[in-house]
Amino acid sequence: MDFASDNASGASDRVMAALVHANKGFAPAYGADAATKEAEARLGALFERECAVFLLATGTASNALALASFTPPWGAIFCHQDAHVMDDECGAPEFYSAGAKLVGLSGSDGKIDAQSFDAALEAYPRGLVKQVQPAVLTLSQATESGTLYSLDEIAAFGARAHDAGLAVHMDGARFANSIAALGCTPAQMTWRAGVDVLSLGASKNGAIACEAVVFFDSSHAHDFVYRRKRAGHTLSKSRFLATQMNAWLEDDHWLDLTRHANSCAAQLEAGLRNAGARIVWPRHVNEVFAVVPRAADVALKEAGARYYEWPSRALAPEQAPREGEVFVRLVCSFATDPADVARFVAICAQITKG
Amino acid sequence: MDFASDNASGASDRVMAALVHANKGFAPAYGADAATKEAEARLGALFERECAVFLLATGTASNALALASFTPPWGAIFCHQDAHVMDDECGAPEFYSAGAKLVGLSGSDGKIDAQSFDAALEAYPRGLVKQVQPAVLTLSQATESGTLYSLDEIAAFGARAHDAGLAVHMDGARFANSIAALGCTPAQMTWRAGVDVLSLGASKNGAIACEAVVFFDSSHAHDFVYRRKRAGHTLSKSRFLATQMNAWLEDDHWLDLTRHANSCAAQLEAGLRNAGARIVWPRHVNEVFAVVPRAADVALKEAGARYYEWPSRALAPEQAPREGEVFVRLVCSFATDPADVARFVAICAQITKG
Amino acid sequence: MDFASDNASGASDRVMAALVHANKGFAPAYGADAATKEAEARLGALFERECAVFLLATGTASNALALASFTPPWGAIFCHQDAHVMDDECGAPEFYSAGAKLVGLSGSDGKIDAQSFDAALEAYPRGLVKQVQPAVLTLSQATESGTLYSLDEIAAFGARAHDAGLAVHMDGARFANSIAALGCTPAQMTWRAGVDVLSLGASKNGAIACEAVVFFDSSHAHDFVYRRKRAGHTLSKSRFLATQMNAWLEDDHWLDLTRHANSCAAQLEAGLRNAGARIVWPRHVNEVFAVVPRAADVALKEAGARYYEWPSRALAPEQAPREGEVFVRLVCSFATDPADVARFVAICAQITKG
Amino acid sequence: MDFASDNASGASDRVMAALVHANKGFAPAYGADAATKEAEARLGALFERECAVFLLATGTASNALALASFTPPWGAIFCHQDAHVMDDECGAPEFYSAGAKLVGLSGSDGKIDAQSFDAALEAYPRGLVKQVQPAVLTLSQATESGTLYSLDEIAAFGARAHDAGLAVHMDGARFANSIAALGCTPAQMTWRAGVDVLSLGASKNGAIACEAVVFFDSSHAHDFVYRRKRAGHTLSKSRFLATQMNAWLEDDHWLDLTRHANSCAAQLEAGLRNAGARIVWPRHVNEVFAVVPRAADVALKEAGARYYEWPSRALAPEQAPREGEVFVRLVCSFATDPADVARFVAICAQITKG
Repeated sequence: MDFASDNASGASDRVMAALVHANKGFAPAYGADAATKEAEARLGALFERECAVFLLATGTASNALALASFTPPWGAIFCHQDAHVMDDECGAPEFYSAGAKLVGLSGSDGKIDAQSFDAALEAYPRGLVKQVQPAVLTLSQATESGTLYSLDEIAAFGARAHDAGLAVHMDGARFANSIAALGCTPAQMTWRAGVDVLSLGASKNGAIACEAVVFFDSSHAHDFVYRRKRAGHTLSKSRFLATQMNAWLEDDHWLDLTRHANSCAAQLEAGLRNAGARIVWPRHVNEVFAVVPRAADVALKEAGARYYEWPSRALAPEQAPREGEVFVRLVCSFATDPADVARFVAICAQITKG
Repeated sequence: MDFASDNASGASDRVMAALVHANKGFAPAYGADAATKEAEARLGALFERECAVFLLATGTASNALALASFTPPWGAIFCHQDAHVMDDECGAPEFYSAGAKLVGLSGSDGKIDAQSFDAALEAYPRGLVKQVQPAVLTLSQATESGTLYSLDEIAAFGARAHDAGLAVHMDGARFANSIAALGCTPAQMTWRAGVDVLSLGASKNGAIACEAVVFFDSSHAHDFVYRRKRAGHTLSKSRFLATQMNAWLEDDHWLDLTRHANSCAAQLEAGLRNAGARIVWPRHVNEVFAVVPRAADVALKEAGARYYEWPSRALAPEQAPREGEVFVRLVCSFATDPADVARFVAICAQITKG
Repeated sequence: MDFASDNASGASDRVMAALVHANKGFAPAYGADAATKEAEARLGALFERECAVFLLATGTASNALALASFTPPWGAIFCHQDAHVMDDECGAPEFYSAGAKLVGLSGSDGKIDAQSFDAALEAYPRGLVKQVQPAVLTLSQATESGTLYSLDEIAAFGARAHDAGLAVHMDGARFANSIAALGCTPAQMTWRAGVDVLSLGASKNGAIACEAVVFFDSSHAHDFVYRRKRAGHTLSKSRFLATQMNAWLEDDHWLDLTRHANSCAAQLEAGLRNAGARIVWPRHVNEVFAVVPRAADVALKEAGARYYEWPSRALAPEQAPREGEVFVRLVCSFATDPADVARFVAICAQITKG
Repeated sequence: MDFASDNASGASDRVMAALVHANKGFAPAYGADAATKEAEARLGALFERECAVFLLATGTASNALALASFTPPWGAIFCHQDAHVMDDECGAPEFYSAGAKLVGLSGSDGKIDAQSFDAALEAYPRGLVKQVQPAVLTLSQATESGTLYSLDEIAAFGARAHDAGLAVHMDGARFANSIAALGCTPAQMTWRAGVDVLSLGASKNGAIACEAVVFFDSSHAHDFVYRRKRAGHTLSKSRFLATQMNAWLEDDHWLDLTRHANSCAAQLEAGLRNAGARIVWPRHVNEVFAVVPRAADVALKEAGARYYEWPSRALAPEQAPREGEVFVRLVCSFATDPADVARFVAICAQITKG
């Protein structure tokens, strides 16, 4: 019963088998190998256009390098106040951008509110020398609250940002879960909606460690090879990154993996609701945020369940856990066993229903 | 016949098998897993003392993060003028240290000359505010020229550096080859000789992508978790890094791998000498630097051999390639087939001996 | 009628006369001159203790260098969300600290609320690797809203910050106005209340360009000479900075200057209240923040008055300007002519009282 | 007898009188004042073209900010190995550029050798990802050795740099001395010879603290206001910087000041030669580098002379001071009294000639 994070699982069998297969013989280093070329082509096909694609091993690096490509050191990066880039990367965006400022926007359910973005644009006018200059809007799809922007919402943010001269970045650590949930094409959720650069994550969904930064206009990507190299994020044996990506994309494997994760989460959400837990944010992908009785929390822990208690400061006051309650995050992955979900729900229900 | 680099090979079968095995079930992320603990313990045992150990995926990150731990932004890092940190990392040490200055020292065969180090210490006196302040001496073992410092040489540099208040870093991308060649213990070549922090590389010798930063005094390591995280070099699924390291160290597998690489290089060196090529630097580990006739170079390339022509500016004038000659680097790895070495030598000899 | 800023005035006659006098003969550069030694001694005497003192030319540099001395690049600097360091220095603190994060705290009247600080300490726990680490609390005295912390409030923040392992910085761009208003000693308002480092500004109050960074424990100041030099903030002809400071401090000239500025602002506040303007924040020093009728604004501008319209987002909703109103900041300085104040008030009253 | 540095003198009487005059009344801050506009216009006229001009207080900031405008963090800045930016600014260029690498070139008399520049361009090919990328060539006019490039030499470097896609910066801390010595126009020595950006210093020649960064193509200057602000180098009371520049330029005052300085140095050089001292580098402007007997050094110091012993590592071996000799730098300024020069020479001659 491990619901701690989608990174508590390993790689899918298919991905691992591909790695074993790729381990034969010699290959040019630093991206000149055939597997890397294949990954670039696969991603171009996936997004239905020529892209500039760069592979690396972590989501934090992927986000920080992508953002740094679009902001000067005196730039402002607008993000949700609870975004991963804001709070969970130990200042990586500031490091990579040589000191840009992340400006946290508000909005319920982990999603940026359009008015909050407008107010920020007004508060940081272009050309006011004493202030950092508006540079990037970053949207997380899915958000830190496990919720999704609709395609229309993304497009509206994209248009608003472009009108104001900002670039649009998407943190797609759970991009695959999002596509699986929305049922749209990758192109629709990105460049067709105004996204300029995507941090696409496979690590949480079946890879060992594999992320791609995808620039939808390659003219923005000229510096990226230097940025990545200088950061120590250019893996010498690139074929192993590329092989993960290729196996993950082949035959819609990535969608199969994330459909499973999302479906487990749906099962978990339904079960917990039925058991009387409060689901605080809409469950859109593979994460369930729930307020459960302390007694259930104790029983689950005793039964060996793993998950994190979550900071309640992101909650609206009326949603906050009350005396005797605990606010928890539960994450499903491609490796989640539906039987574990059922067992988890049963233990919870036993407490709540007596 | 791939002699381009030791990173053109993949992972050893043992390492790959261990990864497949480690891919079962769930594990806590970010280093809280059992495999990571095991790697820390193994490295402590290897170095015969309590160490602070951090795993990551690239040598550039390992070097840059280790150096940044010992220099302020206004510090001077002394290295050989041909060192990897100086010329092959696109400014990573400057990036990670927020702008420290790498001061290139001279010395033949890729090794820092003691007088050059003394002159640098005199040129950068402590407390002279207009200049960057002496902070770190970094030694590459083996060097970019494929040569080794003796234990006495390391100890002399270590003592001189410590007397001057500098920390000592060792770039050990080919640490394993060096230990295999010198036949000493890891402790002898590092902390017993004055090394404060080691960048220990497995990637070039049987791993997919695995490096360890080893602090021999853990009080120097307090900040490292933040530095690594902020750089995006904390892999979520740490078990896969750790598993590589564990399999690599187990049963002296790392030494078996590097003894093979070194031995192939020795065979190559002897064969080329015999074929009349000039070996410009002493062949100490798994790299051979040779000046060969242009005709041999052409014949080898036609036969499918892969290797790099090497910049001749690091050569003493009397060593430089003359008209009709080419200066090349040839690297062997654990995966090098001795038959390929023999074939390479034969092609070369055919040209030179007619 | 220039109420745009206290930096619209020049230097006091005394300060200028001292500069003329100091311009005789030769003096050692970079702070080895007698005037600089004198300034250090004067500041030590002023603060009743041994201090480490560094002179420079701008408040932004003074703040940023002082903050950078107490935070690692992965640190959090807690400040009021409307603080000058947050919004008016184009990211200087991020630049000088190599990317630390400024965390904006809330609180009315431009003053940090104690609960907001507590919540921030809870949100950024020490040792949680994914987040930046708590490093500094910075208090502006006076604040961007022209208000003052009481000595007790400063001491309470100082104690809370030290308990949590944070250093305390004071942005004293209007330190002199604050001392003049509170009638306490400089020691009471700083180190006796827990301030570790002060950015003390003379530029807004009678100097041309002169600021001092004052460390109350010189062990924190070891790196500062390098930081300042590397930033290009070590003026070669240090005697001219020091002479400004010496003349400013001599015979309580600094207090005479700021008493005048504060008194003009008090006269302005009283007059505007009487004329029916709304004073939105308590007028503690030399700034008046007022909501005036648009017609008055027009008449004043026509009469040649200079001042800034101020962003209303810092106001509580009930304070915000309504239709037909303008929110303005009015700043007095040592050079303000009370007759200008009277004229300004009269124009305003003419509109409001008909 | 102060020959320590040209920054040991104060401001010229004319400059100081202008400051006193400028200190009347109010003026808009941050460069919106009339004096700043005038300075921009004067510099445009001086250089005979539209320029983008920025004033600040120190030469280090001027150099570092100008260089940072033309290099990415992964750029290489080529300079003479003894240049001020290399060795005397505590890493300011690295700081301001977020970690670019300064590559020291060789050449006698403090001047970059054309072959050394060519070799560097070859060693840092564009597009080789593992290395920093060629970005800027910086020439010091005059050099740290007090020597000058001819107009033809500058033009040749300018053309070579532009061919290779590099920008050209000129460190003009002693620009005025150089113009006075060469008798050319400012335009001839800069943009007509290929200089893209100039750090023009007045501080060493009659100002208190005043430098201008001059971009000869204003399209390169778009970011500069942010860079300067963020660095804390935007003085609020800009009129005082501008007034120094205006008074310095008016009526060729700057040339009168530097002609005097150069002439004193010429007198000093001639006297020392006559006294048997060795002048190691050609005396082109206001600095004399001489090897004198230790006994003369002692006698001069006893007589109250101030000057610096200079590191001999920049000397060719045959020029180095021998036993009983001292290598010194002697700097004249606008304030140097020819009688002091005569006295200095006489003391020296007394020793050498008995």
